[in-house]
Amino acid sequence: MSNGKKIVIIGCGAAGGTAAQFARKTDRKAEIIIFEKDKYPQYSKCGLPYTISEIIPKKTDLIEFPKDWFKNANIELFLDTTVEKIDIKKGIVLANKGNEKIEKKYDSLIICTGANPIFPPIKNLYENGRIIKGVFAVRTIDDALNISSYIKKDGNATIVGAGLIGLEMADNISKKKMNVSVVEALPNILANTLDEDISKIIFEKISQHVKIFTNHLATKINNKNGKISKICIKNRETDEEKEIETDLLIVAVGAKPNISLAKNIGCKIGETKGIIVNDKSETTVKNVYSAGDCTEYIDFITNKPVLIGLGSIAVRQAISAGINAAGGSYNFLNGVLLSRTSEFFNLEIAGVGPINKNLSDFSTVSGRFNGFSRPDYFPGGKPITIKVTVNQKDGRILAAQAVGENAAQRINTFSTAILGHLDVETFKKLETAYAPPIAPTLDVVTIVCDIVSKKLKQKK
Amino acid sequence: MSNGKKIVIIGCGAAGGTAAQFARKTDRKAEIIIFEKDKYPQYSKCGLPYTISEIIPKKTDLIEFPKDWFKNANIELFLDTTVEKIDIKKGIVLANKGNEKIEKKYDSLIICTGANPIFPPIKNLYENGRIIKGVFAVRTIDDALNISSYIKKDGNATIVGAGLIGLEMADNISKKKMNVSVVEALPNILANTLDEDISKIIFEKISQHVKIFTNHLATKINNKNGKISKICIKNRETDEEKEIETDLLIVAVGAKPNISLAKNIGCKIGETKGIIVNDKSETTVKNVYSAGDCTEYIDFITNKPVLIGLGSIAVRQAISAGINAAGGSYNFLNGVLLSRTSEFFNLEIAGVGPINKNLSDFSTVSGRFNGFSRPDYFPGGKPITIKVTVNQKDGRILAAQAVGENAAQRINTFSTAILGHLDVETFKKLETAYAPPIAPTLDVVTIVCDIVSKKLKQKK
Repeated sequence: MSNGKKIVIIGCGAAGGTAAQFARKTDRKAEIIIFEKDKYPQYSKCGLPYTISEIIPKKTDLIEFPKDWFKNANIELFLDTTVEKIDIKKGIVLANKGNEKIEKKYDSLIICTGANPIFPPIKNLYENGRIIKGVFAVRTIDDALNISSYIKKDGNATIVGAGLIGLEMADNISKKKMNVSVVEALPNILANTLDEDISKIIFEKISQHVKIFTNHLATKINNKNGKISKICIKNRETDEEKEIETDLLIVAVGAKPNISLAKNIGCKIGETKGIIVNDKSETTVKNVYSAGDCTEYIDFITNKPVLIGLGSIAVRQAISAGINAAGGSYNFLNGVLLSRTSEFFNLEIAGVGPINKNLSDFSTVSGRFNGFSRPDYFPGGKPITIKVTVNQKDGRILAAQAVGENAAQRINTFSTAILGHLDVETFKKLETAYAPPIAPTLDVVTIVCDIVSKKLKQKK
Repeated sequence: MSNGKKIVIIGCGAAGGTAAQFARKTDRKAEIIIFEKDKYPQYSKCGLPYTISEIIPKKTDLIEFPKDWFKNANIELFLDTTVEKIDIKKGIVLANKGNEKIEKKYDSLIICTGANPIFPPIKNLYENGRIIKGVFAVRTIDDALNISSYIKKDGNATIVGAGLIGLEMADNISKKKMNVSVVEALPNILANTLDEDISKIIFEKISQHVKIFTNHLATKINNKNGKISKICIKNRETDEEKEIETDLLIVAVGAKPNISLAKNIGCKIGETKGIIVNDKSETTVKNVYSAGDCTEYIDFITNKPVLIGLGSIAVRQAISAGINAAGGSYNFLNGVLLSRTSEFFNLEIAGVGPINKNLSDFSTVSGRFNGFSRPDYFPGGKPITIKVTVNQKDGRILAAQAVGENAAQRINTFSTAILGHLDVETFKKLETAYAPPIAPTLDVVTIVCDIVSKKLKQKK
């Protein structure tokens, strides 16, 4: 496979960087070029919140593959470089680095342009065409650097959006002794991550640490000396309005795929507004691949298109893009499981599969169980709540969610069950590993399945 | 199913107690009787080592179901009661409680007589027909009470047998500031639990805490005032002999199924010397069931009979025995996965599936990977070594072993894969849940599969 292909990659985030890495592994002689508009090479976006609390001491610690790594791998990396145009007839990418124009031929092109943060319509958000000082998204190292410059003990911070990133930011900013408020437009926190019953458990726990305003819209910014000073919020039910003093406003309400380059060359865009790719990460345009947050994924359970901002999935898809673009052959998992996890305020949460409201095509049966990580007689057991949802028709496991001790690893067990199309009758008999300091004889993962199994039988 | 069956259970360990519980759940009107030769109702044998260090403060804390529980469940429990005879023609069990003779009719009989500790042939082990003072197995609460009476700071303790229980005891006795030596006849510790390469990693770590003599036999006991004072050991290769001063000797070299009652009534005994049962926990004698350490199991992978001393498996099989004996219907998993875990000297270990030396019927390919529990850039990641073994023919996952952070939960993921008959090509694409404080983008469980997948391709 040493054909010396020319591979151009647009974007050096988790997807672009990983695609380059796997293209190199596949073809030692390929000419690999990356254009990245940011000034940093591949770094972990998911790590950004932890640089605010300085759990990760320096923002640049997040750089997983520094410039030298790319140099040593013989990958030509252009930072601070914007791609202006792709000419698919000539197989050329045109880019600008400052005043310099760069033109590169490609045999394979990989588009990893990621997503841009969404800013909701808040009055006075912009001043002179720019976002007002003190308001930031959490997408880049520069965002994190800016946020850190607004961190001050006993100051006030407000987060708009109670999703994973919003709550991670709430925790990490709280660690710097700021007073944190969280404003969420929907009736529940983590509304796209967890079912309502599970999200309520988390709400109870974390509202001991931060003020959370669910069902509230952020409506207007008041400024003082060109910086944000207050955010006005409105209760969506009662229309009651409230002002929150704030020195810092974090907007974390999601992101929109950055598809303009792909769209311009005729790549088919899906109903979610992400780039359509197949399981080889091929777009609908010949020799053009795409991976990461700019693409649309197919859900493993529902077979419906979904947008996802998960690094774990971006990386896996990018492996496929890199290998195939370099002439190898690799199929990405046929559909995404949506395995996900996070931790905030010392609470680990995790999930796999669609949330219940996205399972409306199925008749489902769910069960929930509150257990402990150790047998009762062994001190130090920690609580864990686990929920599983199955297809009523055949008992097949569709989704699971967990809050508490080792939630993520327990959810990985369900992810494996989903990947293997296991039904709850089979999975409930799983022999889990048992030892008193580690786990009970019957782990919560099987007990919850036993509960669902009984419910299923009652419905028959 | 309320036919008011008479169910007699012999033994109130994890198996007997669980069988009673599930018999009661299945038939609210059944007459349920348990005979137990010990003076305690169902308790956790696996918890015994932790009562020595007093992590579990009182030995009786291990009792999971006290006498009152059985009373409330309307289960008649006879403690300190030995079953003398079973008359299968009349359907009667004859037992002795002190001088009292008890006769009970049964419709279903469940034999849960467990296993007895094996004592190797050590010279002077017995004095006046009884085991010499200071030498104990670790099977009962009374064993633990006796052991604790020999615990003294700066004293010397020796463990014979470096299996799971031996090493758990070594750790818990070390916590009481005794000097601990471990003597193992085989060339490796944990020889029946883990492959040699993995056991060597553990040997390195724990030999910082205790002296371990592998490839050594305990040959002779020296006594002083009727108590053990020294244990003589001999190197099996060099024949070199050595004396270890010891105030306390723990024998943990395994256990032998207690099958005499079953054998006497004609239950078929397997080549492993365990009672043969099917997946409904039926013995070969009508209306007679059996569960727990006295039975022989079938390995899920090799289909060969095996003896197992794991509470997790005993309990699962007892669920089936209890339900079926009470007239319900429940199939135990068709073969045991051998999921297992333990922790000693702050090292978590786990495994599933046969060890490599028991996979001689297969052509296998194994891979090993040393990774971390968090991405490199996130502080506090802990090491984890993971190994997976697959069938060369079809890539099916046969076994996995892990040492380190969350070894048990990670092995549960492999147990699920084995249960679902997944091959390594499918499983390596598993989307594991990722977040910087919790797990890396690609968890060790899939990275190790990628390594094996490459090895498999090289062999083709």
